[in-house]
Amino acid sequence: MLNPNYIVGFVDGEGCFCVSLNRKNQQIPEVRLIFEIELREDDLDILKSIQLALRCGNIYYLKYDRYAKWRPHVKYKVSNFTDISQKIIPFFRKYPLQAKKRLSFEKFCKVAEIIETKEHLTAGGIERINNILHGDSLDALDAHVQWGATEIT
Amino acid sequence: MLNPNYIVGFVDGEGCFCVSLNRKNQQIPEVRLIFEIELREDDLDILKSIQLALRCGNIYYLKYDRYAKWRPHVKYKVSNFTDISQKIIPFFRKYPLQAKKRLSFEKFCKVAEIIETKEHLTAGGIERINNILHGDSLDALDAHVQWGATEIT
Repeated sequence: MLNPNYIVGFVDGEGCFCVSLNRKNQQIPEVRLIFEIELREDDLDILKSIQLALRCGNIYYLKYDRYAKWRPHVKYKVSNFTDISQKIIPFFRKYPLQAKKRLSFEKFCKVAEIIETKEHLTAGGIERINNILHGDSLDALDAHVQWGATEIT
Repeated sequence: MLNPNYIVGFVDGEGCFCVSLNRKNQQIPEVRLIFEIELREDDLDILKSIQLALRCGNIYYLKYDRYAKWRPHVKYKVSNFTDISQKIIPFFRKYPLQAKKRLSFEKFCKVAEIIETKEHLTAGGIERINNILHGDSLDALDAHVQWGATEIT
């Protein structure tokens, strides 16, 4: 089993704590938290080891037709909120990130607290989330929006 | 002080074990080993912590005028052969890399053995080094050539 400090070091370099907002033509956008690591396909084994150690998440195979010269990639992804709140967040609380990615993680955790209380289903909650994402050090947050919605900048 | 397993995880993601050959208009190219980690400048602190833990190397500030939109970068670099052979290699022998970067490291170590015996100053030694670099899994080796010489592919 991988040493947890190894996982923290690897994630500080290669991991992503994402907050995803998708408006889907609704007034209140859907908020999701995603923890992911994307690597070249020949580094699949280390993603499997991380998945085993963190006891959650799935691995996806990504082939970018747009980038024919790119090697296919593999992505480890945790998007289930229960896994995020009960496994991912406690893990990185116990073994803290050491590089600037800890700023992304702190914002990720603040958004998780809002989701826990269901406040993210209200306009006020969305405003709070936007304030978290657009606050100081926003640049350190790997915030993005999936499913074709607008990117947070 | 950083946990050594953290450093291994970080290096597995972001580190580079480079073999540099520079012909400099000489028949026998100069061979150098370089261990480096390049990050955005706002991650300088983690490089300082790694430098402290590995007890060698220097940190450089990089500004790419060609890429005006890029943020400046910082690079932690160890190129002194004594530091490579007595600090870097023993560290990663004691705390092994877990991802595909270990293949780069293994080749890096083989070239280090050739440098130890001064064989790299001979045509035969250079041929052996080229065989190491161009062998199986070459793709995993972050081999390159600095000082304007030809890139190893």
